[in-house]
Amino acid sequence: MPRLRLALAQTNPIVGDFTGNSAQIVHAARRASEAGADLLLVGEMALSGYPIEDLAAQPSFLREAHDAVPALATTLAEEGLGGLAVVVGHPDGPFTPRLDGTSNAPTAIAQNCASVLQGGEVRARYAKHHLPNYSVFDEYRVFIPGDELLVLRLKGVDAALIICEDLWRDGGPVGRVLEADAGLLLVINASPFERDKDETRLPLVTRRARETDTIVAYVNIVGGQDDLVFDGDSVVVDGTGAILARAPQFREHLLVVDVDASAATETELRDHVVRVELSAPSLVEPVVTTPLEPDIAVLPDDREQLWNALVLGLRDYVAKNGFRSVVLGLSGGIDSAVCAAIAADALGADRVHGVSMPSRYSSDGSRSDADELAERIGLHYSTEAIAELVQPIEDQLQLTGTAAENVQARIRGLILMAESNTHGHLVLTTGNKTELSVGYSTIYGDSAGGFAPIKDVPKTLVWELARWRNAAAVERGETPPIPANSIEKPPSAELRPDQIDQDTLPPYELLDEILEGYITRRLGRHDLIAAGFDEATVQFVADLVDRSEWKRRQGAIGPKISGMAFGRDRRLPITSRRAG
Amino acid sequence: MPRLRLALAQTNPIVGDFTGNSAQIVHAARRASEAGADLLLVGEMALSGYPIEDLAAQPSFLREAHDAVPALATTLAEEGLGGLAVVVGHPDGPFTPRLDGTSNAPTAIAQNCASVLQGGEVRARYAKHHLPNYSVFDEYRVFIPGDELLVLRLKGVDAALIICEDLWRDGGPVGRVLEADAGLLLVINASPFERDKDETRLPLVTRRARETDTIVAYVNIVGGQDDLVFDGDSVVVDGTGAILARAPQFREHLLVVDVDASAATETELRDHVVRVELSAPSLVEPVVTTPLEPDIAVLPDDREQLWNALVLGLRDYVAKNGFRSVVLGLSGGIDSAVCAAIAADALGADRVHGVSMPSRYSSDGSRSDADELAERIGLHYSTEAIAELVQPIEDQLQLTGTAAENVQARIRGLILMAESNTHGHLVLTTGNKTELSVGYSTIYGDSAGGFAPIKDVPKTLVWELARWRNAAAVERGETPPIPANSIEKPPSAELRPDQIDQDTLPPYELLDEILEGYITRRLGRHDLIAAGFDEATVQFVADLVDRSEWKRRQGAIGPKISGMAFGRDRRLPITSRRAG
Repeated sequence: MPRLRLALAQTNPIVGDFTGNSAQIVHAARRASEAGADLLLVGEMALSGYPIEDLAAQPSFLREAHDAVPALATTLAEEGLGGLAVVVGHPDGPFTPRLDGTSNAPTAIAQNCASVLQGGEVRARYAKHHLPNYSVFDEYRVFIPGDELLVLRLKGVDAALIICEDLWRDGGPVGRVLEADAGLLLVINASPFERDKDETRLPLVTRRARETDTIVAYVNIVGGQDDLVFDGDSVVVDGTGAILARAPQFREHLLVVDVDASAATETELRDHVVRVELSAPSLVEPVVTTPLEPDIAVLPDDREQLWNALVLGLRDYVAKNGFRSVVLGLSGGIDSAVCAAIAADALGADRVHGVSMPSRYSSDGSRSDADELAERIGLHYSTEAIAELVQPIEDQLQLTGTAAENVQARIRGLILMAESNTHGHLVLTTGNKTELSVGYSTIYGDSAGGFAPIKDVPKTLVWELARWRNAAAVERGETPPIPANSIEKPPSAELRPDQIDQDTLPPYELLDEILEGYITRRLGRHDLIAAGFDEATVQFVADLVDRSEWKRRQGAIGPKISGMAFGRDRRLPITSRRAG
Repeated sequence: MPRLRLALAQTNPIVGDFTGNSAQIVHAARRASEAGADLLLVGEMALSGYPIEDLAAQPSFLREAHDAVPALATTLAEEGLGGLAVVVGHPDGPFTPRLDGTSNAPTAIAQNCASVLQGGEVRARYAKHHLPNYSVFDEYRVFIPGDELLVLRLKGVDAALIICEDLWRDGGPVGRVLEADAGLLLVINASPFERDKDETRLPLVTRRARETDTIVAYVNIVGGQDDLVFDGDSVVVDGTGAILARAPQFREHLLVVDVDASAATETELRDHVVRVELSAPSLVEPVVTTPLEPDIAVLPDDREQLWNALVLGLRDYVAKNGFRSVVLGLSGGIDSAVCAAIAADALGADRVHGVSMPSRYSSDGSRSDADELAERIGLHYSTEAIAELVQPIEDQLQLTGTAAENVQARIRGLILMAESNTHGHLVLTTGNKTELSVGYSTIYGDSAGGFAPIKDVPKTLVWELARWRNAAAVERGETPPIPANSIEKPPSAELRPDQIDQDTLPPYELLDEILEGYITRRLGRHDLIAAGFDEATVQFVADLVDRSEWKRRQGAIGPKISGMAFGRDRRLPITSRRAG
C-alpha cells in the first residue's frame, strides 16, 4: 500500500481577512513541508473565514475571494512550497443565480468550494453539494450546490474530496466515494462546537470510514466568530474506524500523520466524477522523513470543554473586533463572578475591569463578595455607588415598583457604557440562559453590552462551571477565582429589600428542566404537562418565555455551546399567540 | 364557457391564533356565500399567520395547525356554508424530515399547504413546491417541498392550485398548468409589501396568465407581522393579461368577481397531477346572482403607499401584541415628528404620548417645534427636563466628550422606559434608516424601544413623506401634522452646543445615495468609487456602516418597506474585516 504523509492544519481565520488568513495557511504549509507532508488540508472557508453570511451575495467580496486563491498558490510557490499539495476552503463566484428546481434563492451567486493548489497553480476545485440550512446555518440561502465529485490522484492513491455537510448526508458525493474506489476521503469542515457534539461527530466519521472502507481525514477550523466557536478536534480514522491521529480542541494546531492507503485502480469514472493527477511533492527536501508516532489528543472532561469554548469565544470576539479590554459590573453574584473568571482566563486579569455599583438595597455580603472576587482574580476594580444617581430620577419621575427597580439596573448599564465610551472597553453583559429565557433582566440595564459570555449557559450549569473552575484552580495549586459565598448564597437581583430570585421564579433545577423541554427540545406546553410537570408552573414559565422574545431579539451575542442557542439558532416571531 | 363566481378574501391573521384566524375565514365565507360565490380563496398560511418561522419545527404547533383544518371545515358546514368550496393556506405536519438530496434541513418536518374544504370535509391538499429562502424568507429551513400539482374540477372548470413562490419560478407546478389544460390558476400568497413591488408582482401575474392562457386569481393576506407588512392587493387577471378585479391595499377586503373560464377537457393526467372533483355549491341560496360589476381598485401614489404601510405595520404590532398606547420622545426634529404622525394615524392621537426631554443644549426652537407638533396632532404631551438628572452622573463619573453626550441620550431612553413600565405604553424609537446605517445613534439611548416605525426609511425619504403627509392634510382640509420648521431646519442631535448632523456626516442626499449602493445594491467600496463617488467619503461611510453592525443587531424591529431592510433581510457578521 502506498504511504502518504498528511498534514491537517487547524487555522483560526477572521471573516474577510484574506491577507491574514492566507498568511496562516502559508505558515501551516511551511511547517507541513518541513514535516515532510505530501498533502496539507486546511478547513472549510479557511481563506475567507466562516460563516460569511450574506457577504456571499456581494460580488465585490466574491471577487476578492476568487482572486485570493491563485494569489495563495503563487505565494506558496514563491516561498518554495509549491510542491506540497494544499487543499483549502473558500467561497467562489460570482456565478449567475440558478432559479430552477435546485435553488430557490435568487441571491445565491456563490459556491462553497475547496481548491487544490500545487506548483503555483490552482489544480482543481470542488463545490459543496449539501448545503446545511438549519440551526445556525443558512447555506442554501447564499450558496449554489455543486454536483461533481473530485478525486485527486497523488503518489498512486486516489483521494476523494468533500466538504463538511457532504459527510453527514446519505447519497450525494459520499455515495460516489465507493464507486470511485478511492483509498482516502478528505473532508474539510467548519463545524462549530456544541456540547456533546463529539458524541455525534466522531461516530459519524468512523461510520463513514467503515462504510466506504476508506481512510477519512477530517480537518476543522478553530476559533470564535460572533456567536460560534469552532473547536478544531480534527481527526484521521482508518477504514476499520480506528483513530490514527487527533488534534487538540480550541487551538491552532498542525496534525501530521502517515497513512497507508489502498493503491488507485483504473476503475472507469462514473458520471459526475472528475479525477485530477497531482505531482508528488518534490520541490522541498523534507526535514522529517522517518515514520511518525501517532499524535492522539484526548478530549478533556465535559465542563472543561465548555469552559474552554466560552474562553475562546470571548477571547476571539475581543481580539478580532479590535478591543484591548473588557468591563463588567460585579454584583457579588454568581453570574458576574463566572463572567469575570472567563474574561481573566481569556485575556489576562490585567485586561479585565470590574465595577461594583452598589445601591441602597445591596447587602454588605454582596459588596464583600464582589471585593473578594476582584482580589482573587486580580482584575482592575472600582466602585460607583448608584444611590445618588437614582434618587433624582425616582424623585423627578415619581417612580415606584418595577419602574423604580429598572432605573437602578439602567443606571448601572449607563455607567458601564460610559466606562466603555471613555476607555474603549468592550462591555460584557452577564446574563445567563435561564434569565434570558424567562426575561428576568432589565433591557437597556443589566442586558446592556456588546458580548454576553454566558448567554447560552443555564443557571444550574453556571454553578457547575463555577465549582469546576475553582476545583481546577485548586488542582493546579492556584487561587480559586470565585468566592465560595457567590456560589452558595441564594441568587438575588437586589433591586428591592430582601428580594431573592425564588420569590418570583420556580427553583432553578425545575426551571432549567422545563426550559430544556420547551426551548431545546421544542416541546409544547401540553407535552410538558403530559410528561408530569405541574400545569400552572409550565404555563407560567412558557408565558414568560414567549413574552420576552422581543427582549432576546435586542440582546447581545454570545457563544453558542448548546444544541439550541438563542439567536439565529432559534428563530421565532415576536408577535405570536401560540398556546400549544 | 362556464361562468364561476370567485371570492378572494384578504384576511389579517395573527401568528398562532388559530381560533381568531378561523373566525376571520368563516366571516369571509359567510359574505362570499351571500354574494353567490362558488369558490372562496384565502391567503397562504391565513389559518396560522405568516411567517411562523421555527414554530414550523415544533410538533405541538403543527398538531394544532393540522387539527384546525378539519375543525374549520366542520364549522363552515355547521354555519350552513359547507356548499362553498374554500381554499385556505396553513402549515401541515409533523412529517418525518427528508435527509435526501431534496432537503438539507433535518429540522424541516412541515409543509406549506393549501387545503380545499367543502361539505364539512377536507377534500384535497396541495403542498408548495418552491420554498423561498432569500431576503426575509427561510422556508427551505422549515418546510419540506411538495411535488404534486392539484387540479380542482368545479362546475365544469379545471382550476390548478399553487402557492406564492410557485408562481415566480419557471418549471415546477406552473409548467404543469398548461399540460393539465386548466382553465383557471388559483394562487394563494403571503407576499409582503416593499416599495415598487407592484411593479414586479402585477407584471408577473399577467405574464403567467398569458403564458398559460389561463385566468389567474391571486389572493394575498394583509396586515403587519413583526417587521413585515402584507399589503393585500389581490387581483384577478384573464388570459390576455387584462385586470378583471383588484382589491385595495392594506386592508381586509372581500373581492368578488365573475370569470368565464375554459371548460374542462378530458385530457389524460400526467404524472404528479391530481384531480379532485368538487360539488357545485348548492347548500345556500345566494343573495346575489346577477352578473357583477368589476371592482378594480387603483393603487395610490408611491408615498401614500409607503405611509399606509408604515401606519399598518405599527397599528398591527401594537394591537397584536396587546398594547393600548405608545410613547415616544419629541425632540422637535423631523424623525420624531414623522413617527408621531404615523402613530396618530395608526392609533388615534389619544393613544399617543409624546415626551419632550430638553437638555441644556436644546434650542428654544426645538422645544417650540415639539410643542407645536403636539398641538397640531393633539397627542398627550408632557415635559421632563433632563439637566438635573444628567448633571449628577456627569459629575460623579467625571464624563466629557462622547461619553457625556451619550448620557443625555441614555437618560432620555431611561425616562421613556420608565413611562412604559408605569403606564404600559409601547416605546417607539424614532431612528431612520440612514442613522441606523452609519450608527449615528446612542445604543440604549435614543435607540431604546420596542418598535422602530421608520427604521427602513432613509432620511431623505423621511422629509419627502413629511411633506406628502402635510400636503395630504391640506387637501383634506385638515391641519398638517408636522411643523414646517421641523421639516426645514438643518437636522441636529443637540447633544452639544451648536451641533448639526452635517458637521460629521456628508450631506444627506449624497449619504443616502452611497448607502443605497453599499447596502441595498450590495456594491463594494471599489464599485462605488469606480461609479464616481469620492473615495474618502465612500471609505468613511462604509467604515461607519461596517462598524455599527453590532448596534443594528440589538435594534428594535420595524416595518420593512425597501428591497433591503435591516434585520433578517440582510444578514452580516459582526466580526468582519471585509474591505472590498
